[in-house]
Amino acid sequence: MKKFFKIKAQDKSSKARSAILNTSHGLIKTPVFMPVGTKATVKAIDHGSLYSMGCDIILGNLYHLYLQPGIEILEEAGGLHKFMNWERSILTDSGGFQVFSLNGLRKIFDNGVQFKSVIDGSTHFFSPEGVIEFQARIGSDILMVLDECMPYTDDVIYTKNAALRTLDWAVSSLKKRDRLNIERPEAKKLKVFGIVQGGFIKDIRKFCAESISEMNFEGIAAGGLSVGESRQMTMEMLGYTSEYIDRKKPFYFMGLGDPVGIIDAIYFGVDMFDCVMPTRISRMGSAFTSAGKINIKNNKYSKDFTPLDEECGCHTCASYTKAYIKHLYKSREILASMLLSVHNLQFVIDLVKKCRKKIEEGSFCSFREEFKSKYQENHCKNS
Amino acid sequence: MKKFFKIKAQDKSSKARSAILNTSHGLIKTPVFMPVGTKATVKAIDHGSLYSMGCDIILGNLYHLYLQPGIEILEEAGGLHKFMNWERSILTDSGGFQVFSLNGLRKIFDNGVQFKSVIDGSTHFFSPEGVIEFQARIGSDILMVLDECMPYTDDVIYTKNAALRTLDWAVSSLKKRDRLNIERPEAKKLKVFGIVQGGFIKDIRKFCAESISEMNFEGIAAGGLSVGESRQMTMEMLGYTSEYIDRKKPFYFMGLGDPVGIIDAIYFGVDMFDCVMPTRISRMGSAFTSAGKINIKNNKYSKDFTPLDEECGCHTCASYTKAYIKHLYKSREILASMLLSVHNLQFVIDLVKKCRKKIEEGSFCSFREEFKSKYQENHCKNS
Repeated sequence: MKKFFKIKAQDKSSKARSAILNTSHGLIKTPVFMPVGTKATVKAIDHGSLYSMGCDIILGNLYHLYLQPGIEILEEAGGLHKFMNWERSILTDSGGFQVFSLNGLRKIFDNGVQFKSVIDGSTHFFSPEGVIEFQARIGSDILMVLDECMPYTDDVIYTKNAALRTLDWAVSSLKKRDRLNIERPEAKKLKVFGIVQGGFIKDIRKFCAESISEMNFEGIAAGGLSVGESRQMTMEMLGYTSEYIDRKKPFYFMGLGDPVGIIDAIYFGVDMFDCVMPTRISRMGSAFTSAGKINIKNNKYSKDFTPLDEECGCHTCASYTKAYIKHLYKSREILASMLLSVHNLQFVIDLVKKCRKKIEEGSFCSFREEFKSKYQENHCKNS
Repeated sequence: MKKFFKIKAQDKSSKARSAILNTSHGLIKTPVFMPVGTKATVKAIDHGSLYSMGCDIILGNLYHLYLQPGIEILEEAGGLHKFMNWERSILTDSGGFQVFSLNGLRKIFDNGVQFKSVIDGSTHFFSPEGVIEFQARIGSDILMVLDECMPYTDDVIYTKNAALRTLDWAVSSLKKRDRLNIERPEAKKLKVFGIVQGGFIKDIRKFCAESISEMNFEGIAAGGLSVGESRQMTMEMLGYTSEYIDRKKPFYFMGLGDPVGIIDAIYFGVDMFDCVMPTRISRMGSAFTSAGKINIKNNKYSKDFTPLDEECGCHTCASYTKAYIKHLYKSREILASMLLSVHNLQFVIDLVKKCRKKIEEGSFCSFREEFKSKYQENHCKNS
């Protein structure tokens, strides 16, 4: 039996490391960026393109999938993988973040959260046990617990209560996982990640990090970061959190997707990332490049017959020019979103892959400095 | 020097035939369906998918390309092919249809048509000579003349005046072509198609068909059909027109793209088709199938885990189910348009390819009957 998580190389001057995740849908080399396929599709990209760009795991969102098409249809299809014909791994988020964003449309109880569907106004209830069961039924490779998500706040009482509830729910989630695992063969045992909350109060973060680490989760996620605070604060809290988690388990930063953020988080020992950013900025005409982020709407690209990034090896950069993509964007053509999404996802996937290589070669920290210096220096110039 | 158009096989019981078109960007077997890439992109499809589905020629639209990105940028890029990185053939429409659709925004003169840009309200002028020159400058493989397009009408005087103007413009277009060709090498000589107008007045149609046939065009198009009249009327006028055209030249029906329409038009000797229909209906959730057209919004597809068409060999049908595509469409995901566009274009391209094969095997007419009977019978059942 292969181990679920195996560390391969550890950087000497930072917490950065390379490792391998092993799910029933394949091996995943970490650090890894997981494109977000909220509604059973990574927006504007065909699966074939994701395979080609070396994407081994995508993220689905239980909240959205529960509402549409619904658990029953996904189960009848033979699970989420079969429903969408995705052959590699899928991590599903429990949807806590989405439910808690529904201000006025949700009500928190100690045993879960009640919310109204944004589609038809019907009332639903997510409990910690329920979301584990749903994710198990749709065949997710990595399941996330239900957690109470908060916006950025310095309210200690609110933060503490939310953190304690999240910890209670973590316990219930594990009980549910264990009950469900009894009848599952070894290869099909559920892999559940706990989530460290605790807002921006260091003592509470520390307590959460230690508590989640003591529990028998397959992995640990940092939640509630990058929710509106400064980037400096994000990294400070991430670094602090990373001091108190069990480093033998995979460490997942939920919702981080910009190149500099990723490379900094890898420095603090993060193994897994997801974010809508690479695909969302694509639909707004932006592109990551090795020289910083650009926006294709800029007039100077009208006659620029070079690729988005000369150093990029993606399908878009191999085939199309800035002038063409600018024209497509200006003409509101779907192909603009398609080509930019391919580029931006490939850019992030390649960046993370390069980090892995540099960690294994023992030169991650100098690579990080070089990348940031080139990216940020030019970023100011380009924007 | 290869001939531009070479007839390969002629059906015995109809005007249907197979042939080969030869442009500087390759050979095109006819009958052929040309996907519409109005603004230098076939909507929601990457070029690679078009190549894979056997698409050898697409259509661009001068009117749209002239306004955005503009002739200057296209020329600076090295032509439309290079601008969009399309390696196969391109036919460009002159944009007459678009300009004449701009009611209130255009004014017709004997030497051309003045119109206002829908983008910024600026005033522009298209002359028959001008549109030939523009199409030559952007490197189109097959150029269309400027013609006066009319909606469906039984007004004889209006029809006659428009037809006569279109014939005058045809003469001017040829003069322009010949002047431009003087300095072009043999392989780069412009190929210009004349357009038969004449509305729905048989005598005028006949006069136009004969007049255009007598001129030295490389091909002949039927314009002003399928503009709102009944399908019976379309086919009657097409059949009538086909009696009076020069059958040694390629015959192109502008703006026809439904399966039954195509197979009927091939019967009347049409070699080339274009239409936005296959991609437009894709963005509205519809799919051609061998058993008729279906709409994926229909509730019965929620748990239908079979492909759009069991008999179709397209990428979409090989990989995805109706239930998944319905979910994507309902979730307003771009992938729904992408997958349906691939399917519908492949369906039409394959249909035309099958017609070609049947013509060469001498069994086109029975194939036509079989196809129509299966398609229409089930069409009633499905809708």
